[in-house]
Amino acid sequence: MDYVNGPGRNHLFVPGPVNIPEQVLRAMNRNNEDYRSPAVPALTKTLLEDVKKIFKTTSGTPFLFPTTGTGAWESALTNTLSPGDRTVSFLIGQFSLLWIDQQKRLNFDVDVVESDWGQGANLEVLASKIAEDRSHTIKAICIVHNETATGVTNNLATVRKILDHYQHPALFLVDGVSSICALDFRMDEWGVDVALTGSQKALSLPTGLGIVCASPKALEASKTAKSVRVFFDWSDYLKFYKLGTYWPYTPSIQLLYGLRAALDLLFEEGLDNVIARHARLGKATRLAVEAWGLKNCTQKEEWFSDTVTAVVVPPHIESSEIVKRAWKRYNLSLGLGLNKVAGKVFRIGHLGNLNELQLLGCLAGVEMVLKDIGYPVKFGSGVAAASAFLQNSTPLIPSRI
Amino acid sequence: MDYVNGPGRNHLFVPGPVNIPEQVLRAMNRNNEDYRSPAVPALTKTLLEDVKKIFKTTSGTPFLFPTTGTGAWESALTNTLSPGDRTVSFLIGQFSLLWIDQQKRLNFDVDVVESDWGQGANLEVLASKIAEDRSHTIKAICIVHNETATGVTNNLATVRKILDHYQHPALFLVDGVSSICALDFRMDEWGVDVALTGSQKALSLPTGLGIVCASPKALEASKTAKSVRVFFDWSDYLKFYKLGTYWPYTPSIQLLYGLRAALDLLFEEGLDNVIARHARLGKATRLAVEAWGLKNCTQKEEWFSDTVTAVVVPPHIESSEIVKRAWKRYNLSLGLGLNKVAGKVFRIGHLGNLNELQLLGCLAGVEMVLKDIGYPVKFGSGVAAASAFLQNSTPLIPSRI
Amino acid sequence: MDYVNGPGRNHLFVPGPVNIPEQVLRAMNRNNEDYRSPAVPALTKTLLEDVKKIFKTTSGTPFLFPTTGTGAWESALTNTLSPGDRTVSFLIGQFSLLWIDQQKRLNFDVDVVESDWGQGANLEVLASKIAEDRSHTIKAICIVHNETATGVTNNLATVRKILDHYQHPALFLVDGVSSICALDFRMDEWGVDVALTGSQKALSLPTGLGIVCASPKALEASKTAKSVRVFFDWSDYLKFYKLGTYWPYTPSIQLLYGLRAALDLLFEEGLDNVIARHARLGKATRLAVEAWGLKNCTQKEEWFSDTVTAVVVPPHIESSEIVKRAWKRYNLSLGLGLNKVAGKVFRIGHLGNLNELQLLGCLAGVEMVLKDIGYPVKFGSGVAAASAFLQNSTPLIPSRI
Amino acid sequence: MDYVNGPGRNHLFVPGPVNIPEQVLRAMNRNNEDYRSPAVPALTKTLLEDVKKIFKTTSGTPFLFPTTGTGAWESALTNTLSPGDRTVSFLIGQFSLLWIDQQKRLNFDVDVVESDWGQGANLEVLASKIAEDRSHTIKAICIVHNETATGVTNNLATVRKILDHYQHPALFLVDGVSSICALDFRMDEWGVDVALTGSQKALSLPTGLGIVCASPKALEASKTAKSVRVFFDWSDYLKFYKLGTYWPYTPSIQLLYGLRAALDLLFEEGLDNVIARHARLGKATRLAVEAWGLKNCTQKEEWFSDTVTAVVVPPHIESSEIVKRAWKRYNLSLGLGLNKVAGKVFRIGHLGNLNELQLLGCLAGVEMVLKDIGYPVKFGSGVAAASAFLQNSTPLIPSRI
Repeated sequence: MDYVNGPGRNHLFVPGPVNIPEQVLRAMNRNNEDYRSPAVPALTKTLLEDVKKIFKTTSGTPFLFPTTGTGAWESALTNTLSPGDRTVSFLIGQFSLLWIDQQKRLNFDVDVVESDWGQGANLEVLASKIAEDRSHTIKAICIVHNETATGVTNNLATVRKILDHYQHPALFLVDGVSSICALDFRMDEWGVDVALTGSQKALSLPTGLGIVCASPKALEASKTAKSVRVFFDWSDYLKFYKLGTYWPYTPSIQLLYGLRAALDLLFEEGLDNVIARHARLGKATRLAVEAWGLKNCTQKEEWFSDTVTAVVVPPHIESSEIVKRAWKRYNLSLGLGLNKVAGKVFRIGHLGNLNELQLLGCLAGVEMVLKDIGYPVKFGSGVAAASAFLQNSTPLIPSRI
Repeated sequence: MDYVNGPGRNHLFVPGPVNIPEQVLRAMNRNNEDYRSPAVPALTKTLLEDVKKIFKTTSGTPFLFPTTGTGAWESALTNTLSPGDRTVSFLIGQFSLLWIDQQKRLNFDVDVVESDWGQGANLEVLASKIAEDRSHTIKAICIVHNETATGVTNNLATVRKILDHYQHPALFLVDGVSSICALDFRMDEWGVDVALTGSQKALSLPTGLGIVCASPKALEASKTAKSVRVFFDWSDYLKFYKLGTYWPYTPSIQLLYGLRAALDLLFEEGLDNVIARHARLGKATRLAVEAWGLKNCTQKEEWFSDTVTAVVVPPHIESSEIVKRAWKRYNLSLGLGLNKVAGKVFRIGHLGNLNELQLLGCLAGVEMVLKDIGYPVKFGSGVAAASAFLQNSTPLIPSRI
Repeated sequence: MDYVNGPGRNHLFVPGPVNIPEQVLRAMNRNNEDYRSPAVPALTKTLLEDVKKIFKTTSGTPFLFPTTGTGAWESALTNTLSPGDRTVSFLIGQFSLLWIDQQKRLNFDVDVVESDWGQGANLEVLASKIAEDRSHTIKAICIVHNETATGVTNNLATVRKILDHYQHPALFLVDGVSSICALDFRMDEWGVDVALTGSQKALSLPTGLGIVCASPKALEASKTAKSVRVFFDWSDYLKFYKLGTYWPYTPSIQLLYGLRAALDLLFEEGLDNVIARHARLGKATRLAVEAWGLKNCTQKEEWFSDTVTAVVVPPHIESSEIVKRAWKRYNLSLGLGLNKVAGKVFRIGHLGNLNELQLLGCLAGVEMVLKDIGYPVKFGSGVAAASAFLQNSTPLIPSRI
Repeated sequence: MDYVNGPGRNHLFVPGPVNIPEQVLRAMNRNNEDYRSPAVPALTKTLLEDVKKIFKTTSGTPFLFPTTGTGAWESALTNTLSPGDRTVSFLIGQFSLLWIDQQKRLNFDVDVVESDWGQGANLEVLASKIAEDRSHTIKAICIVHNETATGVTNNLATVRKILDHYQHPALFLVDGVSSICALDFRMDEWGVDVALTGSQKALSLPTGLGIVCASPKALEASKTAKSVRVFFDWSDYLKFYKLGTYWPYTPSIQLLYGLRAALDLLFEEGLDNVIARHARLGKATRLAVEAWGLKNCTQKEEWFSDTVTAVVVPPHIESSEIVKRAWKRYNLSLGLGLNKVAGKVFRIGHLGNLNELQLLGCLAGVEMVLKDIGYPVKFGSGVAAASAFLQNSTPLIPSRI
């Protein structure tokens, strides 16, 4: 079934799923186990404790759903809200759009704040809505920390400031799918009520875990939330947490051991170092894009994303041709432009288990693809800009000093 | 994290998750991939086509949800029914109980037909309910093909006959979690409208795929069903099927390749041979139980299950002690008694990627555990009964003749 | 290429190669590495230190040759002896025969002491030869600790006593291929000069490492030994040991990490517990053979082997038919009779990563094969005898208490 | 044991061991098997047949020794020559030096033809020696096809021409360790008598197979060659080839399945395409070196190697610092300078399972290391030169067109 095989390694630069470390592949290379034996709860206990660290929370309660990010969204919403509840949601790209679509289908009253694709969430509009909402009709603010379609990172600290300023009790729900474990994220400090991510993003695992973390306030809300839910219901998990068996239904043994290995790697590197590495790779990518004479889809520096860069191509070029060509000729997987920016941008994912030379190989590949496609790139220009920065900023590997 | 390691191989005889074949482990030992490349849709297409064969359907439409059996249940129900709809459901053990619980929480009007645990679904009651229901208030019959908690297999052909006899239009929804790929199951012939299974059962994969198959009538019903659903919505899948990209959200690349390998193995062995192998192992287990002087929880032969046997222990024995002892001393994983039969039965799962000698090792282990726990078993008695049957009935391995 | 696939797990009961633990498979599931980086010497250093423990030596020097047991033999001989040197060698089965053949081809003057196949080395003859050899023409005693073809374990302590009694300086060279890590072996205490094993035996790794351990006296001998050698020369290794780079040529990265995992497992279980487990499984096997009314090829209890049992079949049965049948029908791999005992015995290997229930599955399988082949075995008889013993003697798994 | 772990992937650019394809890792991820079952000979048969294709021979006989390249050398020599035999050997770098050292230790009369390191074998001297040797005292020409230490490829066709011109019967023994499966090699056409390679080189497997191929003339020579050999003796193999069991001692099951997968990948890509890919990557590397203002250790274009490039650093730079720095900061593994060129060159291996973007990542990394170390490289210069060439010459991946 590898009938599209090419020589050498696939260069995986979509913004998820991302490259899995060998250590994690090894940890998952195993037979099934009885999840009711004492071993699996013991393992799960360490996972639930440690997974809180990637959310930077001590008071939150994590849930490891056997699902994807879409399921994690559904879990966040249905456990905290009731049909008809008003949410304020920011439409800034394809993934925020899909979340909004979900909110609508779950029968919430979604107050959509739209921005141009390439801009961040309009927090001024949020401020005025919150200011006006003295009767607290707004039950939740739903915001994507990092919009994967456009490479835009929103300022969550400001959201919290606005809510605090007006002493507004709305729940603060955050999609951290392409941010958590890669960007600076502080659940407790920012007063986030539900945060979530997926295993195949910065955690660098296969798809299959939707990781949701709930604040005490969110847990409280779940007691009265009337949205129908069963598979995604937190209360089933909480029941089994109390029993010490942890699982209301069968978990993936392989993903549990994989998560253990992934967390061990993260903590070995140090979460702050992981974030710094993403900052370095993000900046290097942007320098390359600039050197090529191309534009970042993200319109202002304050929104630049360190996990994905959406590159705007000149009008006469169809960006999907770049993606196709990269895959067909150079075994390079880039991200397509989606929906409104389809054909107009291609995306370079630079998150997860990735280092400087992998990125430079990708950038060199993009240069060749651009040439293939007729864009007059100067060979080595992007690589040079990125290298100059990386050579200055990359630390020694601590375990090798 | 293997801090409960014991020498040698774990003998995995819970009724799921089951032993994964080495070929499947190998197929899944891989990095992530871009699921939007041409490779993943091409692979998915073969999977959707071939997965129909395990349901014995040509007209059904399969869905590969990144979820567990519980999620597959939810998908089956929410896509076909509306809140308030009347379902007839059979309570015969822990898993049918959980499904009924889900049906209630999803706000259906559940008409529960209860049997003693150890008996099959009471189809006479079904017949009378169907007969009486001239106004067709019953929207769906929900039945577990094989109740994993008690080792009871229900007769689905009879269900169909009853519905046909009264020309009743109720949907026929089947939980095939511990039956499909192991027991005789015929979606088209029996007019099943939704059938579902989980990857960690007879398919012998890790947990993570909830496989749901819908008849044309079920698909039609999904157009008007009013239950709220997003993650589990068939319509999103159908949209992407039409586009040829197949996935509304990120699938597990590893499970897709794993499923490919699992199906290849099934077809190589031949689905009928797989079913015959399960019949052989089931019968051998029952002969052993009889030889030990113990009783099968299943009260009549017509309900005997070829995938799991629940063994009733004498009143003075606590069955969970058997399970603990098996694991602590012999690296043998047996199934606990659940809920009503907790403490009263232990379960031997004999499904999935399993052969005669593995089972005989398990049976020999059970004998030692029984002795440990004070039951006066005669060593070798169960093994002898099983061996005598197996030596008569096991075919040569076709590839080695 | 798995065109001889059968359902379920292969039951591997040849006396090597043996079952690899999942932990070891995982450890080896990795890309190549630069063996000149600091990582590989650091790993190698721990291996060389720890591998001494399995030989029970503190003064010995181990070598990890990328070869098989046959190569390890050659390394033991060529590094310590010169062409024309007289060796005393014991011919008691196929593997001692092959080693003697090698000694002859390497131009040593081999003084062969032959026993019936099924008997141990004749140490009385050794004593008289040593007694007579006042001029010390005997340069080395070459003895197989455990003859894999017949399941005979020789008494190495007696060999040492004889040498000491006569203050004879002959080197004491031991093939520990099917004993080390499974049987009681004490290099220092017994004054063994060279001991060797292969990775695919009780260490439970793939084939590929010939592990040779040399006493200080053996190292001294290597300085003057005139046998031609290059690949197998210890002096190249010793040179690189001093440099701290350890490898005169490229090692298998995968086997090094595999060996690390294998040693970790051995030490976790405890070497003495490992040996006790083999004693238990060996005894259980012999009890089964007795219960079947068959004879052990090994003629006296003092020679019984705890790693392999050669079972003598009645004259009218061709033992290779048993081996073929086991594989073709039950996915059971048994050992053939070799050379003099071809057709007369089949062998059950019970060494390496193996536990009680695996063995009982094998024994149940042998019973079915015996029936297939026309031997009037009573089903369950061997299993019962083995179980009764194992149920009395198997300890709880320490990590699970 | 991964205590030198760094984030992201290791960039492995030593000239062996090289990157293993995922397909091969998967194929090797398996338990041991009985190598005496019918399965292993059946597999071996296909391997022996197919391995001839990588030597481009139909008349040769291949041997798959469980050893390294050093062992393969020993096998080539000891099976064809007798102590005292005169060989003509070319000393052009560390690996030819080691082979010559082996020849001397095996007691051949080695006539060494030395060149400066960086030059090829002096074939004019060969021609005059052959011309003078009317009495045919020269029994063998021993030549390294590609000297891995200096990146020099010798012209084997010319060697054959010289021998033919003088109708000289000397055996033609070739070390193809870093050439076969990567460079143009034609055993039959060039009349090579013994050719050999190692699994961890262009075949992209782990270390552990020394693959030796003998011409009919070499086989004939082996009947009278008096060098002592046992482990490396071809005659043992030939005996088991005849029996159809193939193995005189236990092979590595994992490497056999790995070799099967590696050959399948090679044939899928096409051996000529593989060679063209190496030519492309070699040329790209040399263009980068030139752009950096550095010199290739190889002194003339006719000797340029497409599998390894040894780069000469300026006198004030210690090349081992480059290698250390690359590993410590960028997770890049480069080759050290060895022996005469220690400190003076570093090596970029570009062989095996490798593609364009992997190489460009490496080249970008070398640029950063050069900067680190104080060499005034222009960022992007080497990458640009290589990219310009690769963008012109890289074909589409056939399976993706």
